This record gives sequence, structure tokens and C-alpha cells, in this order.
Amino acid sequence: MVHSTTIPKLPCATAFRRPRQIRFTDCDPAGIVFYPQYFVMFNDLVEDWVDNALGIGYRKLIIDRRVGLPTVRLEADFRAVSHMGDAVTLSLAVERLGGRSVTLNLHCQGAEGAIRMHMRQVIVTTSLATLHAIDIPPDLRAAIAHASGIAD
Amino acid sequence: MVHSTTIPKLPCATAFRRPRQIRFTDCDPAGIVFYPQYFVMFNDLVEDWVDNALGIGYRKLIIDRRVGLPTVRLEADFRAVSHMGDAVTLSLAVERLGGRSVTLNLHCQGAEGAIRMHMRQVIVTTSLATLHAIDIPPDLRAAIAHASGIAD
Amino acid sequence: MVHSTTIPKLPCATAFRRPRQIRFTDCDPAGIVFYPQYFVMFNDLVEDWVDNALGIGYRKLIIDRRVGLPTVRLEADFRAVSHMGDAVTLSLAVERLGGRSVTLNLHCQGAEGAIRMHMRQVIVTTSLATLHAIDIPPDLRAAIAHASGIAD
Amino acid sequence: MVHSTTIPKLPCATAFRRPRQIRFTDCDPAGIVFYPQYFVMFNDLVEDWVDNALGIGYRKLIIDRRVGLPTVRLEADFRAVSHMGDAVTLSLAVERLGGRSVTLNLHCQGAEGAIRMHMRQVIVTTSLATLHAIDIPPDLRAAIAHASGIAD
Repeated sequence: MVHSTTIPKLPCATAFRRPRQIRFTDCDPAGIVFYPQYFVMFNDLVEDWVDNALGIGYRKLIIDRRVGLPTVRLEADFRAVSHMGDAVTLSLAVERLGGRSVTLNLHCQGAEGAIRMHMRQVIVTTSLATLHAIDIPPDLRAAIAHASGIAD
Repeated sequence: MVHSTTIPKLPCATAFRRPRQIRFTDCDPAGIVFYPQYFVMFNDLVEDWVDNALGIGYRKLIIDRRVGLPTVRLEADFRAVSHMGDAVTLSLAVERLGGRSVTLNLHCQGAEGAIRMHMRQVIVTTSLATLHAIDIPPDLRAAIAHASGIAD
Repeated sequence: MVHSTTIPKLPCATAFRRPRQIRFTDCDPAGIVFYPQYFVMFNDLVEDWVDNALGIGYRKLIIDRRVGLPTVRLEADFRAVSHMGDAVTLSLAVERLGGRSVTLNLHCQGAEGAIRMHMRQVIVTTSLATLHAIDIPPDLRAAIAHASGIAD
Repeated sequence: MVHSTTIPKLPCATAFRRPRQIRFTDCDPAGIVFYPQYFVMFNDLVEDWVDNALGIGYRKLIIDRRVGLPTVRLEADFRAVSHMGDAVTLSLAVERLGGRSVTLNLHCQGAEGAIRMHMRQVIVTTSLATLHAIDIPPDLRAAIAHASGIAD
């Protein structure tokens, strides 16, 4: 599996965006965001994207349909720290829509405009019954293609 | 900055190792490790490595000397899931010892021998007073070189 | 130290309220909120209360003024579970404003109206330099009294 | 439901004990244990108790037998802070073995002997299929009675 390592340095114009305030509970003894917490924030963002941009319903997908979205690959660059109380913008864009996987570009941008952290994440649609990869369900696939302006 | 994307598929013979049991509190509603929790486990491993393999004292480094070890780059592959109750082995090896950064290879291996997850992590020695990168302190550098069998 | 064990079963009319969606990342392998996560949610609520209802600025209080708000006593009742995707309302009311402590009543209420969890929490104003209790700073005290309709 | 509010100030002689090191990842921007993290530590302790003192198997109980142990009531006193790197002892003792509930006394004791935090926790055996309380399974009940020296 070959991956380009160049994550886009800026979120694209059509990215899905949400504001987020950095919380006391996000921060470590150095007073800055403990880096695994970025992945928690982005998991919440994916949840909002599935709910609001795709209209699929995250809970329905995971609990009722038993379709999971585990991560199989991650590349992240941390370029500037975030402090408690900072207002940041989280963004999500689809880089690639595969048969069983979706490659996301995720950014955390400070109010001053600088990218604090960005990452590329490959998630795979998975049966939570078997924990094996499955084809992206057609309605999810169509919703991602539509919301992302990707021809499918 | 050019990065090779090939993370070693197996921990090297001289890696620092610690057993870890997968906890209820590590797992998500799918009953498997929530992936950001791997980074928490590996942070604990780095702490043990600084304490026990390097003999530097993690608390002394962070609190008394105000030297932080933030992550600036991360590449991770998730190859198999871990379930609550699983006994895994976490391992850490130094891939590169730079002037201000250390590149680590980290693996989570199941009892059956399979690599569940592995990652390359670049950490930078940082002044917690200024949050700027600093040269790796000489005693830390010597300890890493010694423990890792790296000529310095 | 004698404590009444009866936490008010419903939030009072003047309570500070915020909506919260239960996230995948709040839930455990049973698919419901992992109970310590309620305390994280309420910590975020206290943060919002200090910022928005009191106008004091949580970050300013903790970081610039070095005043902490650690918990010294907690009583909690968990009466119904919360699931991923649930829309809940978190509320905060002041039960008692002491010299160095504030007693809070906190509730998590489901959309259907039932109280899922409620707690009484005693927090103490503390110098983060010495980690000793200090008198509630006058501006914080006045803001709490004003926002809570408590004579001071 | 009437509860005594006096949690025993010291762990009893027959308590189940485990050492624990306070981790960077347990601590907040004040450099001390973020209090919800105590509940995570104690959840791990209950897991160890079910595995090692009761011989029931926590994973088997939760996953295979679908018996949950949710908390319905909690009282906690926080008496001294814990810092990163501290070696503490966590202990668990059974205060009461009811028909569907178990009341635990849990302590976190510093190396110097002082009790940092203690709590009383009421957990209820629950069917994870229905999320309703069920009688404590006979083998679990016998194991608790035996391990705790409680006549049953």
C-alpha cells in the first residue's frame, strides 16, 4: 500500500466545518491539548458530518445497521499547540471514495488562521457483527459523493 | 519534509517492551479499543521508557526541568482489532535520534503474535516555558543512544 | 462533616442550562455513557457557566489568576442510562455559597424529561501555586451571588 | 433510599489492593489528577478484582454472559491531590452484599500513607440485553461473599 505523505496544508473550500472550543478537559499538564484528544474531537466531527452533512444518522448507522467506521491508517502533523479556551475550527473533506474505504482530510485551524494540526485518515466500512470490511452501503456512498462533489 | 511511509512491520529485537491488558475503559461501543486510546497507552509506554530504560525520570523531566516531549508527526496503521481483556505487548524502538527530535517505532502485538497496530511517532524536545523546540538535553541524548544501541 | 444526602430531584427554575448530545466517544462497550464521562460533561458545563453566566472567564481564572476549582466532595445518583445520539440537557444551580467553597447541584435530563443523573458537587477555590484553599475571590463571589439570586 | 454518608476513612485489612502509578495522562492542566480519572482507575480495579480476587472473569461476565455492573450511587471525598509520578495504592472492600447490588468502599492511598480520595459506590448487576437490574448471579455472589469474608 503506497500513500502520499503530503496532507493538504489547508482545508478545501467545500469542507464540512464546525467550531470547537478547547476545553480544560482536552488539556494536559503542559496546559495544551493532549494530542490524542484531537482524534476524539475529529471523531465527534465525523459523527456530526454523518448526521448533518450526509443525513445518514450516525447512531442509526452504528447501532441499528451495525456498520462501523474503524480507522485503518492515519497520518498527522502537529504544527502549533492549542491552549485551553482557544476557539478553533475543525474541518473535514473527502480526499478519496473507495469501494470499502473513505480517505478524509481533517484540519484544526486556530482563530488567527493558522493550521494547528491536520491529518489524513482512512476509514473502512465494517460489519460490527463480523468486524470484517464490507462495501460502503449504497446510500452512504451516494450521500458522501453528493456532499463532497465527487463523481460516483 | 520527506517521510518514508513504511513503518517496520515488527518490533526490533532490542525494543523496550511492556505487557498491557486491554481494559473496559479502553473500549468503545463496538467493544474494541477506541483508536485514540492506543496513543494514550503508548504515552504511558514512553513514560515507562524514560523512567526505566533511560533512567531520566519522566516527572523530573516534565515538571522539574520543564522539558516537554510533544508529538509533531505521526503515522499509524491499524491492522487488527483489540478486545477487552486481551493481553497485548507494547514495544518502543528508536528509529532516529536527531538534534531536537526522536523518531520512535511503536507496536502493539497480540498474544497470538499478530501486530494489531504500529506507528511511527516523531517527538520534539521542547521548553515548556516557551513551547519552542530545544536541543535534546545531553543526558537524555546519551541515555537514548545508550539504551538504543545508537552511536551518538 | 455532615452532609444531607438528598440531592434535589429536579433542576431549579433558575438553573444554568446547556444542551449536549451524547457522543460515541462518551460511551462504553455496553453502548451507554461510561459514568465518569458525566463528570467530564459537567466540568465543561462549569466552564461554560464561569464564561457565560458569570462573565469571569474560565481560562483567565485558571491560567492567568492561577485559581483552581477542585472538587472535594461529590454525591451522585444514576437513575437512567443515556445512549449514543441522545439529546440531553445539562443544568447547574448553586445550592450554597460558602467562604471558600461552592456547592453545586447538577442534573442531566433526557429529552423525554426524565432525570438521567444528578449530583451534588462541592468545589473549593484553591491557589494553584500552593494547592491550598483560598477565599472565593470577591469578583467571582459577587458574580455567583448575582447569577444565582443568592444574597451575599 | 437512605445512605449513611460516612465513608470509612481507611481501607479495611482484608481489602483487595493494587499499586498504581499516576500517569501524565491522568493529570489536568493543574498538574494533578483530574478527578474523573479516579473513577477510571477504580473501574480498572473492579476489573482486576473480578478477574483475580473473584475468579469470575470480567470480560466473560460483560461480553459472554452480558451482565453489566453499572453504578447507581456514588459518594466521594477528595482529601489530598495526587501528582504525576506518584505511586499510590488503590483498594476495594465490600461494605454490603445486597440482592441485586453491591456496595463498595474504594480508597486511593499515597505512599506516605495519607488517603487521597475515598468513595462509596453502589453497583447493580444488570442484564445488558434489557438494561434492567437482575439478581446477582449465584456464582458471582458466592465469590464475593467468599473473597470478602461476608456470610451469605
